[in-house]
Order: sequence, then C-alpha cells, then structure tokens
Amino acid sequence: MEEKIKEALAEIQRGTAEIIDIEGIEKLLKNYYENGENFYVKAGFDPTAPDLHLGHTVLIQKLATFQKFGGIVQFLIGDFTATIGDPTGKSETRKVLSEEDVLENAQSYKEQVFKILDPEKTEVKFNSKWLKELGTGGLISLASNLTVARMLERDDFAKRYASNTPIAVSEFTYPLLQGYDSVAMGTDIELGGTDQKFNLLMGRTLQKAYNTGKQQAVLMMPILEGLDGVQKMSKSLGNYIGVTDNPNDMFGKTLSISDELMWRYYELLSSKSLKEIEDLKTGVENGSLHPKKVKEELAMEIVERFHGEGQGEIAKAEFEKIFAKKDIPTDMPEYEMTAGIWLCQALVDAKLVNSTSQARRDVKANAVSINQEKVTDEKLNLEVGEYILQKGKKSFAKIIIK
Amino acid sequence: MEEKIKEALAEIQRGTAEIIDIEGIEKLLKNYYENGENFYVKAGFDPTAPDLHLGHTVLIQKLATFQKFGGIVQFLIGDFTATIGDPTGKSETRKVLSEEDVLENAQSYKEQVFKILDPEKTEVKFNSKWLKELGTGGLISLASNLTVARMLERDDFAKRYASNTPIAVSEFTYPLLQGYDSVAMGTDIELGGTDQKFNLLMGRTLQKAYNTGKQQAVLMMPILEGLDGVQKMSKSLGNYIGVTDNPNDMFGKTLSISDELMWRYYELLSSKSLKEIEDLKTGVENGSLHPKKVKEELAMEIVERFHGEGQGEIAKAEFEKIFAKKDIPTDMPEYEMTAGIWLCQALVDAKLVNSTSQARRDVKANAVSINQEKVTDEKLNLEVGEYILQKGKKSFAKIIIK
Repeated sequence: MEEKIKEALAEIQRGTAEIIDIEGIEKLLKNYYENGENFYVKAGFDPTAPDLHLGHTVLIQKLATFQKFGGIVQFLIGDFTATIGDPTGKSETRKVLSEEDVLENAQSYKEQVFKILDPEKTEVKFNSKWLKELGTGGLISLASNLTVARMLERDDFAKRYASNTPIAVSEFTYPLLQGYDSVAMGTDIELGGTDQKFNLLMGRTLQKAYNTGKQQAVLMMPILEGLDGVQKMSKSLGNYIGVTDNPNDMFGKTLSISDELMWRYYELLSSKSLKEIEDLKTGVENGSLHPKKVKEELAMEIVERFHGEGQGEIAKAEFEKIFAKKDIPTDMPEYEMTAGIWLCQALVDAKLVNSTSQARRDVKANAVSINQEKVTDEKLNLEVGEYILQKGKKSFAKIIIK
Repeated sequence: MEEKIKEALAEIQRGTAEIIDIEGIEKLLKNYYENGENFYVKAGFDPTAPDLHLGHTVLIQKLATFQKFGGIVQFLIGDFTATIGDPTGKSETRKVLSEEDVLENAQSYKEQVFKILDPEKTEVKFNSKWLKELGTGGLISLASNLTVARMLERDDFAKRYASNTPIAVSEFTYPLLQGYDSVAMGTDIELGGTDQKFNLLMGRTLQKAYNTGKQQAVLMMPILEGLDGVQKMSKSLGNYIGVTDNPNDMFGKTLSISDELMWRYYELLSSKSLKEIEDLKTGVENGSLHPKKVKEELAMEIVERFHGEGQGEIAKAEFEKIFAKKDIPTDMPEYEMTAGIWLCQALVDAKLVNSTSQARRDVKANAVSINQEKVTDEKLNLEVGEYILQKGKKSFAKIIIK
C-alpha cells in the first residue's frame, strides 16, 4: 500500500506549481486505501464561459487524476455572482444570467469535461444554493473573518490600491464567497491556478473559522502557455486550442508549437506516464526519433481525447494531404477574416495581390489555389474555416475565417 | 410665509455643528407651508442601550424642533446588526439580542423619548425589516456602490489602518447599511453627531445610486460635554445626567457645572428661545442676575421636562435643604462605591479615617454625619444614592453609591 500511495502522490504532484499541505493529501490517500473512504476535490468554474480550451483542461486532467485515487470531484459552477442583479444600474457590462442560462451552460460544460472526467465520480454543484441562503446577516458574519489589511495583501488588490485604481467594497466579498463554498461543500482539496492562491487559501481559513473539522489542501497548477509559447493560452489572444475545435484544427495547431513547448504540453496535457515521456525525450536526443513524429503523437492523443479513438490518425492523414505536399512553406503569414468574405477581397487583404480587379484576373488565369486546389469561380465567398491561399508558385498565406 | 420659514430655519440651525444641503431643508419647509406636505427626519439609535442621558437628548430635541415645522420623525432602532449571530464563535463580546429584547428596549426608548418627541409625529422603525430582505446578493450589490479607498478615508478607519489595528471586512458594511436605511425609508433629512458625518453622507450617496429621487440633507449636532466641561458626556465616564435620573440628582448635577458650560447647556438643551437666553446673559453681565439663579432655572427646566411640571421647584427645595446649610463646602472629593457598603468601610474608602476600627470609634463618639444628620448605628450599610459623609467639622466627602 505504501507503494500505491507513493505512486499516486507522484502522479498528483506531476506538473503542479505549488501544493499546500501535501501531508493532508497523503492522509486522504491513506484513508482511501485503508478504509475505502472517498474524499472531495473541488474546482470552480465561471458559469458565463463554458467554451473551454486546453489551458482549462490542465486543471481538469488533474481532477481526473484524483478520481483514479479515491477523489470525488466537486465540479462547482459559480453561478451565484452571475445571477446578482445590479439595482444601481451602474455596471452595464455585467452580464446577468438567468437560471436557464446557467443550466444550459452547465450542460455544455458537462459535454466538454466528461471527455476527461469520470461522470460517476463527479458532482456538478451550483453555489447559488447555499450562498442565497446565507443572507445579509450570514454574509456580514462571513466578512467578519477577514481584515481589510489582509485583503489588501492580495496581489491584484495591492496593485490597484497602490495605483489608485478603484476597488469596489463588493469585490472584497468574492474571495470570501469562494472560501465559503468549501465550507458548505466539505471540500478536502481545492485545485486552481497559481493566480488563485489567495482565494484558495481562503477556503482553508474559513473551514477553520467555521469549525468544520476540515482544512482543505490546496493544489495549484501552472498557467499553460499558448501556441506562441510566451503568453498564457487564451481565447482573446487567439493562441489556443479549443476543446470543441475540429480534429484538423487541433492537429494542425498542435503541430505548430515549438519543440520546447511540446515537452511542456506533454507534461501538462498528455496521459503518458513520466517514464514514457522520458523515453521519448531520450529518443529525440539520441536521434532515434524525429521531433516531428513525437509532436504528431501528442497531436493525435489530444484529438482522440476529444473526438474519439481513430480520429487522431484521420486528422493526421488529412493534415498531410493539405500541408505536407511539397512547395508549401511551413511558415507563412496568417490573417483573420470574417465569414462570407469574397475570395478576391481575401486575396487583397492577405496581401497576395494589390487590388480585387487584379485578383479577378489572376483567378481567370488559373493562378489562384485554395488548399492547393485551383479556383475557377471568381465570385466565391469563403465560409468559416482555415485555408491556405496561394497565388502563383511562391506566394502563400494562411487565412482563418471566423 | 417667508418670515415663518426664516424663523424655522433659525431654530433648526441653532446649536448645530454642520448642515449639508440647507437649501434642501428650505425647500422641504416651503413645501410644507405651501402644500401642507410633511417630510421625513431620521435618526438612528442603538438597540442595546436605551438608557439615555442628556448627551442623547441634544439630538432628540432637534428632532422635536423639526416636528414643529412639518417633520415626521423616523425614530430608527438599528436592531439588524444586533440580531446577527456569529457562526464563528469568535467575538464572544458581541451581545446578540433576541426579538423580545429589541421590542422591550424599544418600549423603554419610547418611554424616555416621548417626554421630548410628539408621539403623533413619530414613526418607530426597525431596520431588520428591510435589511434581512436584502439578502446576500442585495448586500453585494449595495457594496458595489463604494470603493475601498473611499471607505478607508473615514477618520477612524484611516487611523486604524495606518496604525495596523485590524479592521474586519464586515465593518465596511455598516456604513452601507446605515445609508441603505435612508434608501428604504425615503428619508429627507438625517440627524447625527459630528462623528457620524461619513455614515450620514452615505445615505445621500446611496439614495442617488438607487435612483430614489431623493438625496437627504444632513444635520450634525455637536457632542455635548459632560459635567466636567471637558470630555463628552458618557455613562462610562460618569459625567452625565441620565434621562431617568431622579429629580434631586438632575438638579444637583446641573448645579455642579461651571458657569461657562451652563451657557452651552442652555443653547443645546433648553427650550428657551435664543432671545430669552441672550437676556439672561445680559442680566448676568450687568450684575442684575446671579449666575446661580440662572443655573437653577436651567436645572428646574431639565427636571420638569423629564419629571413633570412642579417637580423643578420641589427638587430645588430639597437640594437647598441638604446642601445649602452653612459649613458645607461646595467642592469636595467624590467617590463611587457599591451598594450595601458598610458605613465604616465607606469612611475608610473616602479617606476620612485610616481604619474601620477608628471609624467605629468616631461613630460612637457622635463625630460622623450623613447629609448633616449624626449617625449612631455603626453597623449601617449604605444603599444606592448620593450622600455627603462628614467626619468632625472639617472633613467632607461626597459618595455616590451604585
């Protein structure tokens, strides 16, 4: 049993940025192996944005890891604050969600996360249940557990306060509510990003203050870098692989990352054991394995996770069909365009021609290809997708149409 | 009508420390005289301490002034925070009041304040009514109306923050709740002490934020000095005249104040008009009136307010009987003692003798008097009250037994 716990701890620690109270986690594992008692592992999710990318799945895969060792996942949808109306009408930007919105988003979450999590070992929870019940008095009592000075030590608050950027008093309640969720749910371990450290520790503090008999351990995952390998993966930066991306996009985007970033993705996203990854590294180092092969393997694993077995091979074949022919550079300028754009306009915007009339003449002269197929219809409009536009033999551009 | 409003404004402004939005008050008066419409004047009271002294009545008399000019008084008992339990069990000192306690205290308030206020023009309100309804979400929305920086500008918060004295986050909600009371009640004018300025202005801010169509004026009364003329009147400092004090105590305590303080008390506590007070001053200055006479008049007015007509004269006669005989100094050391104290112990504690055995001998020798009556019973215990102890011809002490 000692051995089993040791293995579990190694898998749990893999890729983590920081763990607080690893002894507590060890005790939970021991209790599971000795007495078959489960424990509760919480992670909170924003109810407004169920459109996940691989940056989010780093955490979700760690949740899945716990499920292998006795953890019941508390998949917490933080719907409460999203359902608060704003009687002052000041913050027009705050989107208020109806109960229907919340349930719909929850459904969408389930579809996405149950590709990684075991539904049998997952409880989907909504914090409006207990936070509404808290009431005015309950919230004031809750807020009596923390000092203003301690709150202002939180990194972002400290910076904003120092730079005279307004902090609404209500913002001080959010970490308290997040901590109270752990009180209400009897959480044993909470997972989050490193940027959440203050709020994650709040759960520990409040569980103690409310005499729950628990003090949750905290496990922080690093922020996953986006495809550029520099900035964090995010929708708004466009450097992401979405959980609902189609197989070809997933495959192609994964292949576009650097070799260095590939190892990072292996550590944080692959289901391969640390030993297997070590073997791959050795292979690349001694020249017995081409890095591109290793990257394709990662890309296939990711595709299969979200699209099912066999889809990785298909995506690979498709990718090769489009990109792997000779005469296409691996590096070309990329442009984002809007769905329905006229081909000739796209050629101008992609800087392959100087004018739409020139574009029209080029199409007529059979000098324009999309994904290496000659185009004959100069009136063509382009729908959502990714395309390689080509003019003549040497001018290429990748366009992403949304 | 112009004249009436002018007079009303003069009475309203009398003795105030600061008024914010005097134009607003003028409009309310105008509307009352033109259209007979009433307006609402709020003051908040602590539900735990219905034992009022003259320091409190400064404010209550100002409320009464408004009742003469169309004001309906909102006598607000802030019962909400007193009824909040503390689930963390941390603050053992916080006294939680039951609904019965609150109602009982409210009854006691009424008995005291209706000696000054017109019950027909007074609404007794309890803020738990609307603050409970506010709920978790409502409180968070409320707290979104103020920034942390603004809150930390409040004098006492600023000082505590600067000196690293802990401020609980919950304390930030109290000014907001006080302000929200004005939103819920549709208050037109709020009265309070100068130390309440921040909280009083909160009502103005929140009424605007909640689009109530009102923005209350604020009227601040100065803090009344206690009998010592230096520190503010307060129970704990012992320098007070209680609303429920007996007539003799009221009379005697008033006579004990300095001539300078007497004019202050006239301004803030007397019902005499400014003109009448001016005449009294002139009389004292030109020697036609003895200041003691003027002080007695004030003392009688105060006694009659709380004990009924005719009681002032009686108290004066009683006082003269005890204190006005010759050979008693007007100034003597005072000591507080506990009810039931043995006379001989009291003589020691008042430093009139060195030991209880000496005291016993003195009593036997007919050398001890209480209120100028010789004492013969050396076993006497003293009950609640004020006494002049005397040993021999020249040693005096005043003792106050509680």
